[in-house]
Amino acid sequence: MFRPEIKVVDCTIRDGGLANNSNFSLETVHGVYKALCASGVDYVELGYRNSKKMFSTDEFGPWRFCDEADLRKVVEGVDPGTTKICVMQDAHKAEAEDVLPSSESVVDMIRVATYVKDVDKAIHLANNATEKGYDCTINIMAISHEGPPFLDEALQQMEEETSAKAVYVVDSFGALYSEEVDYLIERYRMYIKTKEIGVHFHNNQQLAFANTIEGIIKGANYVDGTLYGLGRAAGNCPLELLLGFLKNPKFNIVPVLDAVAKVILPLKKEIEWGYHIPYMLTGILDQHPQEAMEWMDGPDKDNFVEFYQQITEEVEA
Amino acid sequence: MFRPEIKVVDCTIRDGGLANNSNFSLETVHGVYKALCASGVDYVELGYRNSKKMFSTDEFGPWRFCDEADLRKVVEGVDPGTTKICVMQDAHKAEAEDVLPSSESVVDMIRVATYVKDVDKAIHLANNATEKGYDCTINIMAISHEGPPFLDEALQQMEEETSAKAVYVVDSFGALYSEEVDYLIERYRMYIKTKEIGVHFHNNQQLAFANTIEGIIKGANYVDGTLYGLGRAAGNCPLELLLGFLKNPKFNIVPVLDAVAKVILPLKKEIEWGYHIPYMLTGILDQHPQEAMEWMDGPDKDNFVEFYQQITEEVEA
Repeated sequence: MFRPEIKVVDCTIRDGGLANNSNFSLETVHGVYKALCASGVDYVELGYRNSKKMFSTDEFGPWRFCDEADLRKVVEGVDPGTTKICVMQDAHKAEAEDVLPSSESVVDMIRVATYVKDVDKAIHLANNATEKGYDCTINIMAISHEGPPFLDEALQQMEEETSAKAVYVVDSFGALYSEEVDYLIERYRMYIKTKEIGVHFHNNQQLAFANTIEGIIKGANYVDGTLYGLGRAAGNCPLELLLGFLKNPKFNIVPVLDAVAKVILPLKKEIEWGYHIPYMLTGILDQHPQEAMEWMDGPDKDNFVEFYQQITEEVEA
Repeated sequence: MFRPEIKVVDCTIRDGGLANNSNFSLETVHGVYKALCASGVDYVELGYRNSKKMFSTDEFGPWRFCDEADLRKVVEGVDPGTTKICVMQDAHKAEAEDVLPSSESVVDMIRVATYVKDVDKAIHLANNATEKGYDCTINIMAISHEGPPFLDEALQQMEEETSAKAVYVVDSFGALYSEEVDYLIERYRMYIKTKEIGVHFHNNQQLAFANTIEGIIKGANYVDGTLYGLGRAAGNCPLELLLGFLKNPKFNIVPVLDAVAKVILPLKKEIEWGYHIPYMLTGILDQHPQEAMEWMDGPDKDNFVEFYQQITEEVEA
């Protein structure tokens, strides 16, 4: 019934960090990590390893940088079971020298996030990770704005020039419908012959979980989720739904339910994520959620008609 | 790009009435109706026409009965455009004599909701509606608990013995995954040759919209939604998402956005619907949401682990 090849990656802290500048308390990160190890999830992504030259340490919390010392505080006293740790590097905001040899790190895998135009930077970071002893993936962001011929060329390069375990479809804008997921995975498969395909969806249109299922049906074996869907704007595929669907007996949903109640729900006081009309509208219109996030912080956040007029006028201009 | 045969049915007031005993104010119902007429949705379902012998008029509001006089107050002063009105009769809780001849009613279509075991009652009510001059549909509830041979027999009867416009797949428990939607529509199509297939999904697993898309891909031409997903427990397919997907130029999303802001969001004070872990768990376990609704009203609603243990112990007993 279940497919043992499927790897589940929790990115609660990493993607959620886009909503609060990675300013989670150590207690929160520790609680998330501990619960996910107990649940048997394959990977926990504890944040970004991005460059302190590009992000201010005054403005951004420790999980934007994932210094080794901070990561060691997270894992202290936790039995990881079979759960591994990953961090993300943005191709255009991270540096190879910030990655220690894997023997000196608690990190197992580095995920490189990139736009198609930055493919060469991404390949450099991916190969840096491989050379230093890590597994790695390459995650192509904003995929709803990409297509042939440059997407094809980038996929071909990733296939030929890296040892990445997986290349991801990342629907940053929550814009994709299932038919587009099908198309993209078929397109990836034309070039990605020796690696897995991964999927990471946003929930602007309440399709993150459904599109993840669609990806799985089409053969994706790396799948991302977050606890209770925590993430920027509308958030992500809720991990608890994914575990319910996967039916792999190695997963235990109970620690996940407990962490949602005790660690994630309290964050609702400081972070607003989930289904809201402004996020839905940027999803439908295939736009970055930034403008919707600003609208949600403004004085008239429930004036959906005005927001709709604002963003459609810009599109037509 | 769009399929003109698709009929969109809004059931905000009818399905939402399961969350508040149909106790909406006239102002709310009028506001919903007016917005949906302006948006060009094909049908607006204003409530149930169930029997006053089976529901107390003290406990239940007017939209459980949809007396003609109440419906006339709703439509007063509104230009319906091309939008038609429907009401629902529960096969086991409604009576044929409560339906006036269509010439004396503002109602255009009667939707008969039934379990497979009540198929003969449903056919009686459907044919009563047809004889009195209405269009009708038959909506098979709790479909995740039904299957051959009784489902097949019921479908065959509906095909042969009624003039229903459509026969519906109704996922009352929010339990279905896309592969099950595919299976059910193919199964329906084996028997339903001269009528359309309809789909109505609940959102316990955040799949109501995605499953509606899946139904459309497989050929369903009657599709249900509600404003902002309002409905019992986790709610329904959000109508605003559906209109965004359908791309039929006859639909106008602006009045829908306005009604969500002004009519629906204020209801959040009295009705709690949407994605919550207890509803998600009954969805995953393919159970009626009643127990989750009681848990949500209880003193310890965020103790998800205890709720999970309670409902899984019962399943295993």
